[in-house]
Amino acid sequence: MAKAPTGPVPVVVMGLGFIGQEIARAALASSEVELIGAVDTHASLAGRPLSDVLGQPAAKLKVSDSLEKALGRRKGGVLLHATGSRLPHIMDQLLEALKLGVPVVSTCEELAFPFLKHPELAEKLDQAAQEAGVAVLGTGVNPGFLMDRLVATVGQACGPVRKVAVTRVVDARTRREALQRKVGAGLSEEEFFELVDKEQLGHVGLLESAALCALGLGLDCDDYEEEVAPVFAEEDISGGAFPVRQGRVAGMFQSVVGFEEGQERVRLELTIAVGAEDPKDRIEIDADPRLVVEIPGGVAGDRATAHTLVNAAPRLTAAEAGLLTVLELPAGR
Amino acid sequence: MAKAPTGPVPVVVMGLGFIGQEIARAALASSEVELIGAVDTHASLAGRPLSDVLGQPAAKLKVSDSLEKALGRRKGGVLLHATGSRLPHIMDQLLEALKLGVPVVSTCEELAFPFLKHPELAEKLDQAAQEAGVAVLGTGVNPGFLMDRLVATVGQACGPVRKVAVTRVVDARTRREALQRKVGAGLSEEEFFELVDKEQLGHVGLLESAALCALGLGLDCDDYEEEVAPVFAEEDISGGAFPVRQGRVAGMFQSVVGFEEGQERVRLELTIAVGAEDPKDRIEIDADPRLVVEIPGGVAGDRATAHTLVNAAPRLTAAEAGLLTVLELPAGR
Repeated sequence: MAKAPTGPVPVVVMGLGFIGQEIARAALASSEVELIGAVDTHASLAGRPLSDVLGQPAAKLKVSDSLEKALGRRKGGVLLHATGSRLPHIMDQLLEALKLGVPVVSTCEELAFPFLKHPELAEKLDQAAQEAGVAVLGTGVNPGFLMDRLVATVGQACGPVRKVAVTRVVDARTRREALQRKVGAGLSEEEFFELVDKEQLGHVGLLESAALCALGLGLDCDDYEEEVAPVFAEEDISGGAFPVRQGRVAGMFQSVVGFEEGQERVRLELTIAVGAEDPKDRIEIDADPRLVVEIPGGVAGDRATAHTLVNAAPRLTAAEAGLLTVLELPAGR
Repeated sequence: MAKAPTGPVPVVVMGLGFIGQEIARAALASSEVELIGAVDTHASLAGRPLSDVLGQPAAKLKVSDSLEKALGRRKGGVLLHATGSRLPHIMDQLLEALKLGVPVVSTCEELAFPFLKHPELAEKLDQAAQEAGVAVLGTGVNPGFLMDRLVATVGQACGPVRKVAVTRVVDARTRREALQRKVGAGLSEEEFFELVDKEQLGHVGLLESAALCALGLGLDCDDYEEEVAPVFAEEDISGGAFPVRQGRVAGMFQSVVGFEEGQERVRLELTIAVGAEDPKDRIEIDADPRLVVEIPGGVAGDRATAHTLVNAAPRLTAAEAGLLTVLELPAGR
């Protein structure tokens, strides 16, 4: 059996945006970690009591402007990192943590499987992590859980996999306003595609999930096709952060399909739209035996993401050094 | 990233009962393992071509009467073991394999979490495995996947868990006759409880799943209560291996409830009966966020068990030495 850690693992949260705050709350609620610091360089946050930022008691912690200050003299700390989706933008932060010998769990979607889009950065991180003797991991719900880790786990009960399809339908009204805007709710079709072209609209991480999914199921995809399309409001939709009129964009449909020698092997489909009907997550593995897994209502993205980071922290301290993926994490907490 | 094995992992199947045969078939279908031998000491099997036993081509293998013969000169083999549910009955086989330096994945239900019922045997196995520098693991669908490993994986997306309930409903008509008889189909109530008292009826491994489930979710159960009860046929039931008349036993309901200081924390409920309605598997984690996972129709027990063993084999060769549980296995194949 794996040895249980002797006490709560000290953790520091970096990035106090919406998700970072959720992570701080999840860390405060967990008996397996101890929140010892928070980092945000934004002028409106640095120096403030964390309890003010979170709107709840937070062990008298103040927001620091550097990881080193947040760690203080505590040893064995893990960084819970939530400052960005794109790996090139956060490389310096990751490398700084590794230089301090601190393991990192990050929400960075591109870090979940950086070997396709950023092989050189992946190599650099892996080396830095190995030199520091600690692990680096990108996780969350999507990527990190629903469309990859969970699929791979379920796939262990199947024989050779012919094809896998994962669909996730989210009613964006259950999510924060920023996410409703991020998926294009309220836009015209033209505005939607302008933002897609500028890479300001669309979910980051679906390709990473597809690659992890393939790897976890023993599929050898050699090509991936990605698509983003608007979902239109079929009637006026209320109940969200703002009303969406009939005919306007209600949200987005995004898919990644992975092929092996021209044959479809992996299909991930994500719909996030205000008023989306029958929200749920569904995994269908075409194998012997065929397996379907459903999560009625779907996994609550933001809070669940926060918990995946917090729950990964104690496991990471026991993991081998280097750049890991969620496929390497053990099943338990 | 974990290093991919350089080629298929050689495996030997021991025990050519129904499940052992399924394991052999699953191994033959997998590109990640290579079936190099089969062992069964039963006089009707030893020496026969494996293809005869399986009713399909089987790489010209013959059934051996010892593991040593089945391994021959091949190095790096893993034993896929399927000879019994009770740990004391199979200890010698496990110790023999460890003495030969062979890692073991077994269907033995009590091996999935032997620390409660057989702490001394667990200690002995752990020591022997560590001395041999290889891993030993008990797995399957139940225990090993549905009510423990999968639950722990899903639980990583949740905050502190208040309670978990897992229900599995199997229509025994979809399973082999031996299983239909094993759950009491066709018996009277009196005959049912006679067999329960003799430990000849009931599912072995539910307590083990409950303990794994608790451990994987960070719950600290100090007491478990187990119950077995008959399910009666409400009308004549056909379509099984034999008809079951109204009023006779159709199968069994079995539950284990885990408590922490008198508070219910874990509830596992298993119904296996001919004609059971709405067969499915369901996990409900009471936490923040609350998570429900459903497998409509349920996981096909026998075949899925075979695949969990085959899929665990390559992972086991890379695992640390000792007695492991499925909670330590990584998510991927």
